[in-house]
Amino acid sequence: MSRDAAFTVVGGGLAGSLMAIYLGRAGHAVDVYERRPDPRLAGADAGRSINLAISTRGLYALEQVGLRDQVLAMAVPMRGRMIHATTGDLTFQPYGTRDQAINSVSRAGLNQLLLNAAEKTARVPVHFNQRCEVVDFEHGTITFASPGDEQTVIETGAIVGADGAFSTVRTQMMRRERFTYSQAYLAHGYKELYIPPAAGGGFRMDPNALHIWPRGGFMMIALPNFDGSFTCTIFWAFEGDNSFQNLTNEDDVIRFFTRTYPDAVPLMPTLAQDYFSNPTSSLVTVRCSPWHVGGRAVLLGDAAHAVVPFYGQGANAAFEDCVLLDQCLKTAPGDRAAAFTRFEQTRKRHADAIADLALGNFVEMRDRVASPTFLFKKKVEKLIHSIFPGTFIPLYTMVSFSRIPYADAVEKARKQDLFLKAAGLIALIGLLALVIAAARTLG
Amino acid sequence: MSRDAAFTVVGGGLAGSLMAIYLGRAGHAVDVYERRPDPRLAGADAGRSINLAISTRGLYALEQVGLRDQVLAMAVPMRGRMIHATTGDLTFQPYGTRDQAINSVSRAGLNQLLLNAAEKTARVPVHFNQRCEVVDFEHGTITFASPGDEQTVIETGAIVGADGAFSTVRTQMMRRERFTYSQAYLAHGYKELYIPPAAGGGFRMDPNALHIWPRGGFMMIALPNFDGSFTCTIFWAFEGDNSFQNLTNEDDVIRFFTRTYPDAVPLMPTLAQDYFSNPTSSLVTVRCSPWHVGGRAVLLGDAAHAVVPFYGQGANAAFEDCVLLDQCLKTAPGDRAAAFTRFEQTRKRHADAIADLALGNFVEMRDRVASPTFLFKKKVEKLIHSIFPGTFIPLYTMVSFSRIPYADAVEKARKQDLFLKAAGLIALIGLLALVIAAARTLG
Repeated sequence: MSRDAAFTVVGGGLAGSLMAIYLGRAGHAVDVYERRPDPRLAGADAGRSINLAISTRGLYALEQVGLRDQVLAMAVPMRGRMIHATTGDLTFQPYGTRDQAINSVSRAGLNQLLLNAAEKTARVPVHFNQRCEVVDFEHGTITFASPGDEQTVIETGAIVGADGAFSTVRTQMMRRERFTYSQAYLAHGYKELYIPPAAGGGFRMDPNALHIWPRGGFMMIALPNFDGSFTCTIFWAFEGDNSFQNLTNEDDVIRFFTRTYPDAVPLMPTLAQDYFSNPTSSLVTVRCSPWHVGGRAVLLGDAAHAVVPFYGQGANAAFEDCVLLDQCLKTAPGDRAAAFTRFEQTRKRHADAIADLALGNFVEMRDRVASPTFLFKKKVEKLIHSIFPGTFIPLYTMVSFSRIPYADAVEKARKQDLFLKAAGLIALIGLLALVIAAARTLG
Repeated sequence: MSRDAAFTVVGGGLAGSLMAIYLGRAGHAVDVYERRPDPRLAGADAGRSINLAISTRGLYALEQVGLRDQVLAMAVPMRGRMIHATTGDLTFQPYGTRDQAINSVSRAGLNQLLLNAAEKTARVPVHFNQRCEVVDFEHGTITFASPGDEQTVIETGAIVGADGAFSTVRTQMMRRERFTYSQAYLAHGYKELYIPPAAGGGFRMDPNALHIWPRGGFMMIALPNFDGSFTCTIFWAFEGDNSFQNLTNEDDVIRFFTRTYPDAVPLMPTLAQDYFSNPTSSLVTVRCSPWHVGGRAVLLGDAAHAVVPFYGQGANAAFEDCVLLDQCLKTAPGDRAAAFTRFEQTRKRHADAIADLALGNFVEMRDRVASPTFLFKKKVEKLIHSIFPGTFIPLYTMVSFSRIPYADAVEKARKQDLFLKAAGLIALIGLLALVIAAARTLG
C-alpha cells in the first residue's frame, strides 16, 4: 500500500483507538501516535480514574467492532438518578424503563481494552511517548517529539486528529486562514474525590444509580466503579460563594462538606487529603470549523467538539463520530476529501446540539432535579411516552437510549414541549368549562 | 518614575496611539511598540488606503485630547446612504437630521495624526519595526524582534495590548488557563477597488454619502476620500454564486461588474487590474475574556473585540475604550488590577453588542436597504423621533450619533420596536372599527 493511502491517528485515547480499529478493519494502513506512555505498562489506577457513562450510541459503535459485551462486562449499570437532599433523604428518578441504563465504566479500563483491540485484532501499531508538535498539511508530514525531545518526522496520507479538547492537530489547523474557532470555559471547575468499597467488599451506596447532591448553583455527583468504590466529583465555581477559593485548610473542607453533603462525609475517609492532593480542573466547550483540511486531515471527538460532561455524552459522541467517519470513507472510496466534507456536513450541527445540551444539563443537575415542577414534568412525559412510545419520547431518552441524531432529538423535543403546553392549556380550559358548568347546575 | 509604574502599549495603530496619548497626558511613563515601519517615513498611500467612518463616539474621544477639529478637517461628511439600483436609479436615505453625518477619513492619515500627537504632544516614544513575540505576564517582560530577528527584551509595569484583531498579546494570554475565546469568519471576504477623482478634480459621485450597491447576498460600497477619489469595497462570498471564486480573468471581471454594478464601471478605469492586484481579505469577529491579566496587562480595541466593518463602529468602539480605560485608571489610582477589572466589567457587554450589530448590519446593507418595507419602517421611525426626539431614537441614530452604550441602545431599540408593533396593531384595529362603522352607516 502506498504512503498516500495510509492513515495516521494522532491520539490513542478513546476516540483515536476506536477509530484506528475501524480503519484497520476497513483495510487501511494505519498507525496511532500517543503523547503519553502506554497506560497498560504504567499501571494506571483504573479504580480511581474518571468514569464515563456509556449509553446506546457508544454501545452501538462498540458493537460494530465486536467489543460491546466486553465493555458491558466491566461496567456498572445506572438506572436513574439518586438525589441526595441535605436532610439525607433519597429520591430515585429512573432514567427510562426498567431495562434502560447508562453504564459507568472506567476511562482507563476502556482505553486499555480499545488499545488491545487496535493492536491485536486490527493490527494497528501504537507508538507511545510521541508528542505531536507540527503538522504540515501541504506535504502530509507530522513532527513528533519524544519526552527527551528527540524528533521524528513521519509522512502520511491522511491525519486523523483525535487528540482531545486541547488538540495540537486543531491548533495547527487554526494557523491556516479563516478557521472559525471557540473555546468557552465555565466559571465552574471540578475535582474528583473518593468513596472506597465497604469493609467487607461491596458498595456503600446503591450501585445502580448516578448519585447527585444538587445544591443550587453547585453540586457533587458520584458514579459507581466495578470494584465497589465510587468516584465522586464536585462541580463548584472557582471563585465566589461556595467556591474552591473558599476552602483553604482541612478543617474548612470537613466543615463545609458536613454542612453541605452530610450523608456523604462518613463514606469518604480520605476526603480532606483527597481534596488537597487532587487537582481542580476546568470545563471547556470547543467548537470549530472546518473540521478537515481537504482530504489530508480530519478532526474527531473532543478535538472537533469538546463538550462539558453533564449529559454523559462526550465519549458516546466521539464513538458515534467513528461510526460516521467509517461510513463516509466507505461511501466515497478513494476520495478522502469528499468523505471528510460529508462527515463534517452531516455531523457538525449534531455536535453543536450536544454541546448546548451538555451546558443546559448542568443547570438541570445542580438545580432543577430537586424541584417539584421538574419532577412533575418528568412524570407527565413518562406517562405520555408509555401511551405513545413511538411518537412521544422524552429528550433524555432520545439522547441516551436512541441513536436519533442530537439536533433532530432537540427539534423533536421542542415540538413535544409545544404539544405538552397546548395540551395543558386545553385541559385547563376544559376544566374551567367544567367548573363553570357545575357551578351553574348547582347554582 | 519606577519601572513598575510604566506602561508599554503594544501596537501603534489607531487604538494604541490614542491610548498612548491618554496615558501620556495622565502623567504615566509610556512607550509604544509597533510591528510595522513608521507610516510617516514609508509614505503610505493615504488616498487609496482603507477608509473609516468616524462618528460621535470617536469624535468625543478625539475631542478629550484636543484632536477633534484636526480630524474633521481631513474628513468628508457622509449624511446618508446612496442606494444604487441595477438600473442606475439612485435613492438617498439620510442617516439622521441634516447636520448628522458620519465622517469618511483615511485610516493612514488618521494614524499619522495620532502618532504625531503621541510623540509631540504627549511625549511618548514610539518604537517601529518591533514585532511582539513573547509576553511574560508574571515578570512583566516582553520580547520584541526586529525585521532582522534581533531580539529585545523590555521590562514594564503594565502592558496594553492594542495590536489588533490578530493580537499577539491576546494569543499569549490565551496560553494561560481558562481563557474564553472565539474567532468567527464570515463566508464573505472583501476587496478594495478604486474610483479616481474627476479629470478636472472633484468627485465623480455625490461625496456626502456612503454609496451602496445592494445586490442581495453580496454588495459593493464606496466611501469618499478627501482628494476626490472613492475607495470601493466589494463584499462577496469566497465560494459559490456571485463569489470571488467565479472570476478568473479580466474579461470575467468586466462582464460581471457591467451586469451587476453598471453605473460604477465607467468610473473605475483600473477595475480589472485592481481586481487582480489587490488582495481578498477575510472578515473576522473576535470575542474573548478575560481582557486582562491582573494589573499587568489589558487588551483594548480590536485585540479585545474585533468586529466586522458593517456598522462603521470598529474604530469608534476602540476610541471609546480609550476614554473608558483612562477613566478607570483615574478612578483607581495605583490599583491597575481594579482599573482593568472595572474596564472589562463595564465594557464587555457593549463590545459584544456592537459585534452582533455589525454582523446584523451586513444583512441590512446588502439586502434590506433596497426593500420598501425597510424604507417605510425607517420613515415611521424618523417621524416618531421628530415628534418625541428625546424618547424615541432610531437604533442607527443611537449607535452613530449618541454615546449611549451599545448594549443599552440595543435594549432601548428592542422596547421601541415592541412599542411600534403595538401601536401598529392598535392603529389597524382602529382602522378596522372605522371601516365597519362606515360600512354600517352607509349600509
